[in-house]
Amino acid sequence: MAGDGTIEKVSIIISKGSLEGVYPGLIMANGARAEGIEANLFFTFFGLDAIHERRWERVRLATVGNPGLHLPTWVGALPGVSALMTRYMARRMDRLDIPPVPEFVEMIADTGAGLYACQASVDLFGYRREDFIGQVKDIITVGEFYDLAAGGQIIFT
Amino acid sequence: MAGDGTIEKVSIIISKGSLEGVYPGLIMANGARAEGIEANLFFTFFGLDAIHERRWERVRLATVGNPGLHLPTWVGALPGVSALMTRYMARRMDRLDIPPVPEFVEMIADTGAGLYACQASVDLFGYRREDFIGQVKDIITVGEFYDLAAGGQIIFT
Amino acid sequence: MAGDGTIEKVSIIISKGSLEGVYPGLIMANGARAEGIEANLFFTFFGLDAIHERRWERVRLATVGNPGLHLPTWVGALPGVSALMTRYMARRMDRLDIPPVPEFVEMIADTGAGLYACQASVDLFGYRREDFIGQVKDIITVGEFYDLAAGGQIIFT
Repeated sequence: MAGDGTIEKVSIIISKGSLEGVYPGLIMANGARAEGIEANLFFTFFGLDAIHERRWERVRLATVGNPGLHLPTWVGALPGVSALMTRYMARRMDRLDIPPVPEFVEMIADTGAGLYACQASVDLFGYRREDFIGQVKDIITVGEFYDLAAGGQIIFT
Repeated sequence: MAGDGTIEKVSIIISKGSLEGVYPGLIMANGARAEGIEANLFFTFFGLDAIHERRWERVRLATVGNPGLHLPTWVGALPGVSALMTRYMARRMDRLDIPPVPEFVEMIADTGAGLYACQASVDLFGYRREDFIGQVKDIITVGEFYDLAAGGQIIFT
Repeated sequence: MAGDGTIEKVSIIISKGSLEGVYPGLIMANGARAEGIEANLFFTFFGLDAIHERRWERVRLATVGNPGLHLPTWVGALPGVSALMTRYMARRMDRLDIPPVPEFVEMIADTGAGLYACQASVDLFGYRREDFIGQVKDIITVGEFYDLAAGGQIIFT
């Protein structure tokens, strides 16, 4: 964001826990690192699921309230449909070498991106530090987030 | 966003009317003001509920289309489940000193943050100026929004 | 975003396929062009529907998982309710001279805004170049997006 017109840093907030809520932020962080752009990921609200030891395996696609899926609403609400769609998407992603959430998160951490959990959300859900995967650098406040994000682009997903 | 790497202003757009749609923006605005960062909140589409006199008390958690809640879809669709989850979240928030939507919005306005409603959305829903709480400074166009947001970060939630 | 405090460019990402997911981004792009601000639109995930030849006519309002509509959840899940709400919203928009999605997208392209599809999402859904409307300039990677977005504001919707 400096005057020379290059992006030097992105601070990506992941606030949703669904598959289609988590992937855009992961893809943007991964793409930034591939370009040599500094990238930090901040997980807040239901987005915390993506870095939660016992939940990140189960991030699922939202099949109701999502007209983009072209399913009648009542089909989306049938037991099992969300799991089925997730398996379908996962298979497609696999074929495209897009890893599942846990592997993708680990991969992005390995590129040097910082992973942070939002303090207010951690308190809200009653989580503790040890609930999160080891790659999480810190649990930080909104103020600390702004400090880290300064000089770059904030992308709320 | 100046060259010295500090954030001087945030312009936060709140576009969703659910509890988990409204809170992130409020928390980010509140956190900005606590750091002495200029903050303006722009309410658009269903986000307008959060500043609507007769609706801000009733902003609710979306219990369907939200895999983050770990509820089977059909449970989320049962009458009353959304209201129940909202009460549960509200109790947790209360324990953490996170105020309910109306008090939180008032508190943020008191810190000097500007509250604005989106003209196009106000027209779309057929609202009038007097439908909104007194803390709303103005109903503005997208162009006026860009003028106000210049020199800072735009955060769409 | 230059030091003089004016916004020179906006890069708007449209990631959702519902009516209320697509419109905010379109309205912000249109408003930017009206102010002489450079605007580019990036369609990703279900947002691709808005530029898909056989799908852009059918972008619908999400009636479940959306407490902002003030419908009991079970009403929103009834067959036909989403289509009904969409027709209601479309009528209101028409009265306000807000065009339907296809006309709005064409109009924005005519103002000189750039329309781009996200490569990863195109691969994910198995789409091809010819599935998209002629106004789409290119299918680009995340890295190319960052290059295009440099020097402006990124707005993820």
